[in-house]
Amino acid sequence: MQAFVYLGPGKKALQEHAKPEITSPGDAIVKITKTTICGTDLHILKGDVPSCQPGRILGHEGVGVIDAVGSAVTAFKVGDKVLISCISACGKCAYCRKLMYSHCTTGGWILGNTIDGTQAEYVRIPHADNSLYPIPAGADEEALTMLSDILPTGFECGVLNGKVQPGCTVAIVGSGPIGLAALLTAQFYSPAEIIMIDLDDNRLAVARRFGATSTVNSADGKAAAAVMKMTEGRGVDTAIEAVGVAATFELCAQIVAPGGTIANIGVHGTKVDLHLENLWDRNISITTRLVDTVSTPMLLNTVRSHKIDAKLLITHRFKLAQILEAYETFGHAAESRALKIIIEA
Amino acid sequence: MQAFVYLGPGKKALQEHAKPEITSPGDAIVKITKTTICGTDLHILKGDVPSCQPGRILGHEGVGVIDAVGSAVTAFKVGDKVLISCISACGKCAYCRKLMYSHCTTGGWILGNTIDGTQAEYVRIPHADNSLYPIPAGADEEALTMLSDILPTGFECGVLNGKVQPGCTVAIVGSGPIGLAALLTAQFYSPAEIIMIDLDDNRLAVARRFGATSTVNSADGKAAAAVMKMTEGRGVDTAIEAVGVAATFELCAQIVAPGGTIANIGVHGTKVDLHLENLWDRNISITTRLVDTVSTPMLLNTVRSHKIDAKLLITHRFKLAQILEAYETFGHAAESRALKIIIEA
Amino acid sequence: MQAFVYLGPGKKALQEHAKPEITSPGDAIVKITKTTICGTDLHILKGDVPSCQPGRILGHEGVGVIDAVGSAVTAFKVGDKVLISCISACGKCAYCRKLMYSHCTTGGWILGNTIDGTQAEYVRIPHADNSLYPIPAGADEEALTMLSDILPTGFECGVLNGKVQPGCTVAIVGSGPIGLAALLTAQFYSPAEIIMIDLDDNRLAVARRFGATSTVNSADGKAAAAVMKMTEGRGVDTAIEAVGVAATFELCAQIVAPGGTIANIGVHGTKVDLHLENLWDRNISITTRLVDTVSTPMLLNTVRSHKIDAKLLITHRFKLAQILEAYETFGHAAESRALKIIIEA
Amino acid sequence: MQAFVYLGPGKKALQEHAKPEITSPGDAIVKITKTTICGTDLHILKGDVPSCQPGRILGHEGVGVIDAVGSAVTAFKVGDKVLISCISACGKCAYCRKLMYSHCTTGGWILGNTIDGTQAEYVRIPHADNSLYPIPAGADEEALTMLSDILPTGFECGVLNGKVQPGCTVAIVGSGPIGLAALLTAQFYSPAEIIMIDLDDNRLAVARRFGATSTVNSADGKAAAAVMKMTEGRGVDTAIEAVGVAATFELCAQIVAPGGTIANIGVHGTKVDLHLENLWDRNISITTRLVDTVSTPMLLNTVRSHKIDAKLLITHRFKLAQILEAYETFGHAAESRALKIIIEA
Repeated sequence: MQAFVYLGPGKKALQEHAKPEITSPGDAIVKITKTTICGTDLHILKGDVPSCQPGRILGHEGVGVIDAVGSAVTAFKVGDKVLISCISACGKCAYCRKLMYSHCTTGGWILGNTIDGTQAEYVRIPHADNSLYPIPAGADEEALTMLSDILPTGFECGVLNGKVQPGCTVAIVGSGPIGLAALLTAQFYSPAEIIMIDLDDNRLAVARRFGATSTVNSADGKAAAAVMKMTEGRGVDTAIEAVGVAATFELCAQIVAPGGTIANIGVHGTKVDLHLENLWDRNISITTRLVDTVSTPMLLNTVRSHKIDAKLLITHRFKLAQILEAYETFGHAAESRALKIIIEA
Repeated sequence: MQAFVYLGPGKKALQEHAKPEITSPGDAIVKITKTTICGTDLHILKGDVPSCQPGRILGHEGVGVIDAVGSAVTAFKVGDKVLISCISACGKCAYCRKLMYSHCTTGGWILGNTIDGTQAEYVRIPHADNSLYPIPAGADEEALTMLSDILPTGFECGVLNGKVQPGCTVAIVGSGPIGLAALLTAQFYSPAEIIMIDLDDNRLAVARRFGATSTVNSADGKAAAAVMKMTEGRGVDTAIEAVGVAATFELCAQIVAPGGTIANIGVHGTKVDLHLENLWDRNISITTRLVDTVSTPMLLNTVRSHKIDAKLLITHRFKLAQILEAYETFGHAAESRALKIIIEA
Repeated sequence: MQAFVYLGPGKKALQEHAKPEITSPGDAIVKITKTTICGTDLHILKGDVPSCQPGRILGHEGVGVIDAVGSAVTAFKVGDKVLISCISACGKCAYCRKLMYSHCTTGGWILGNTIDGTQAEYVRIPHADNSLYPIPAGADEEALTMLSDILPTGFECGVLNGKVQPGCTVAIVGSGPIGLAALLTAQFYSPAEIIMIDLDDNRLAVARRFGATSTVNSADGKAAAAVMKMTEGRGVDTAIEAVGVAATFELCAQIVAPGGTIANIGVHGTKVDLHLENLWDRNISITTRLVDTVSTPMLLNTVRSHKIDAKLLITHRFKLAQILEAYETFGHAAESRALKIIIEA
Repeated sequence: MQAFVYLGPGKKALQEHAKPEITSPGDAIVKITKTTICGTDLHILKGDVPSCQPGRILGHEGVGVIDAVGSAVTAFKVGDKVLISCISACGKCAYCRKLMYSHCTTGGWILGNTIDGTQAEYVRIPHADNSLYPIPAGADEEALTMLSDILPTGFECGVLNGKVQPGCTVAIVGSGPIGLAALLTAQFYSPAEIIMIDLDDNRLAVARRFGATSTVNSADGKAAAAVMKMTEGRGVDTAIEAVGVAATFELCAQIVAPGGTIANIGVHGTKVDLHLENLWDRNISITTRLVDTVSTPMLLNTVRSHKIDAKLLITHRFKLAQILEAYETFGHAAESRALKIIIEA
């Protein structure tokens, strides 16, 4: 089969690869129909993710059709259409029993990381019963591809952890795909204000189209002052960090109101300064989270009932044969204005 | 009347002072019967608390008897025995209506800070109806003095924010009075293990007597490794920071388990390093809080029903006339082994 | 002044009445600009509410302008535009400190019940600081009149108690004003389905216009079967009882899914059958509540930010001089299709 | 093997039976070392549980040793000592993913009900990975037998659902084994008062020994008045129903304070009267629950750390050969004063 393979820092190829096989009774083999590229894939290609070694097929998102199942799989049969979760969950370990699938002792984020992933014609999914979801008849497969990772990540790490509530004020720092996923799912809770902050006016324009009530371009270094003015000096109830660098985290800490929450979604590579000398008496919470995808069934309901238009995030479409071009487009998002790219296998 | 007055950095005196008077319809004047000294008072004396200016009577803890009430006070009358909360709350502002009394727009921590405090024969208590509590008949007044600040602080900022639950594992970093208050109140929730960490073996011995299931002397710089070993590599569900310096916060970050909470009680004077490069995917929470004293009615119930022995914290007793000596004793706790000191007015 | 007075079962009049005066330092006198009629007022007129005695001015909803304030009132001054809460709260008692304003020991639902109410030119509001809300500049006063009672009641007793969540399935039994208030505010949480159940097709048509995703006319006695079919045999996550009779409560009990909640809003006059032989192992919750109006600040935010169109509930408008006609219209809602009626004072 | 078999209403026998075999890849066969009898077993013997048909081996509690495992079992191997949960959970279905194991679509309470149970030398456990728990080295097996059903039932259905909190007031109606299990586990949360109510003075004496702060014999029909007097007219924060008849449920409804919770543990055979005409405005919750055994890992921690003495519940011990005598003893608890009976296989 054809598969997109990481070959070491800066090296990659679409190449022929053996089709995966069932290796454990809980496995399923899924024939991929659609997959997509995540910002994390770009990090892997740079060599920033040591757990992912050369030779690995990338990709942890997608939808497909069951091609084969192991003897212990009970929820799926050959021919079923399925949504693939970016997180594999055994459903049995101490973390899974606390609904922290991200920390599953034999799962978590392994697809396209420590085992071969979805940017290929077929993929092996361990713990299939807890890591795949049936696709309802008539559902839009492109929309559902957004439920493998980006929407549950924005929702769980940003919106749920950030305790977004009706009538509250939210700021989201970072208007890339993940910040926009938080923006879309924050609206499930009808906050009064959602302030979107980014350096790129194009992205802020997208954010306004997606429901942001106001936007701040932080290029002038005065975003904190702008947000405090917008909130009449109170700050925001929820500050969602969707970039992953020190400056954006520290901006969140400057604008969070007493009693508020900083919900970190960003993947951080270095430490940040936490100004406890200012924050120790402010009654705030700071949260971190790798997505657990426990909200996937709920998100499926909201997509099916049109409470969210997940396809808004999709800007480009390519065939698997064109995946190198797709990576180029996604990797130069400032110019291409790419958000999420559908790859048809 | 006699009052203990802060006279500028390093300067203090017990001196004659005018008796306070009702200045607002919600005020009460309380004749102090017992008060105590807080670590914060030592900070003020060093000049570390700019909001507290020279000439201020210190003290934000104590019990006493109502001497006079303003026209709007309905809950108390002259002669009632009362517990004084360290936090004054109007009960009306947006923060009070969210039970964040610490951020009351006309209250919060003002006693012995921006208005005269309790280390005197009399004190004026603004917003008396929401800032005083009736003392049940037959209650032990010394025990109740521990409910002005230290027990609600340990409980709300450490135990409640730290989400201590039956069967969980707790570490408390800092075995001074506030860490011990967290230790005592953590036991309301029957955690399986409470690991107490400090540099001082005497304090750790006290902690064991107060219910710690194990102790770690962190003087060798290997406390994190010791805690990880004790927890078989998992870390702790709740790490309570009860010191207020960078090293102890960072220790908490090293020992918190995935899904756990770092509850900060300590008063911090400088920033700390937050290693988000390690923590971003660990599903943890970090909380800060100035005590709201919303748990005071509940704590009164637990004292009255002997679920906690608040008097364990009391090591020394002085008369108001001896308050300089009391401060000496409290300020040299390593030698005196002082925890909380009762001052009888 | 003119006031609408209950004169005993079946008797009522618009008559001249002494203007109210400040009787306690926490009181305010409000000049009414708009008020409205509640279903409870009809119950009082029938003699069903023994706490409300003849001679009482009715009404517990409205907006107005501060005419006078007592000496302890700090949040309002003469001339301020205010929203009147149906619940008076001292902010000091044990219940108020738990945010259960409905059970305030010197407040709760007293307006137009045990003290004179708002269907008059002026009204005395006790505990004004905690029982009035400032009206933001430019706000629509008619819309805000819906925040005195009906919207917080539908929201707190139905939606919050019912734990409505994104993607869930809700049934609301009763499509009168209070059921519709629950319907409007349930949408803050983006449930996937809201099934509205009533005997009156006109009311169900209104419900569809207000956002119900499906409706069931229960006249044929087969509503439970219809809901179970709609939910593929699962039942609903939240069943909101908005009528107050045994049959509608028991319908809720038949359609609630395992793990679900029955949130009772209705005012009940008799006992109901609770079929614990069917429900004991179903992991359900049943809640009751008199509105606390603790959500009023949040609801003000949602009205201001256009997350809800509160005016949808208003169908008729009258002058205070026409209040008898207004009661006729409201009392014959099946024919008049009245929901809420604005009365201009 | 020897097994205790239900043979139809009033008929039972210890008889020879085929040893169970693995029938599904997720199964385990457990050699029973200790089991016990539940009140539900008595109901089955009377013919009150239609799902349990003649020929069934009874018993849903016990500890043992793994004798064989199916090909999909990963958490256990032959020779492991295990605790058997009364609830079987697949870990995969929609209910298991919400931690409602009691409603598992292929599990729930099936042991000794719809499949053969534990009152035998061997038992087949479906979904073994999620339905068994490893027994820590050195643990007391008799104590752990109390964790199969009675302690998680008292804790989850009574204490957790009842929201027992430090300093609160609890009443438990019914001082049989299940009420006592609630009493023991309620103390995890340090309530100020636990009032135990029963008709039998012997059982109330046991309750006082187990930690009840006061007791009421309800034989005179005046228990509600007694509780209201004890609570100075307020009622209790949590009322736990641990009998399962109308009178005890209605007693709970009479004594619950505004804002309180009635947590139903009892198995009910008929409807009860719910006096919504009194309760609609009291802000109460009523909960029902079949135990999910999601608290088992936590309870194991509390037993291991000696936060609870589970063996207090054990009053008698028999060999499997004596099981008919054991049933006699358990079935005449008033005379035998039996609580839980250990049966050694």
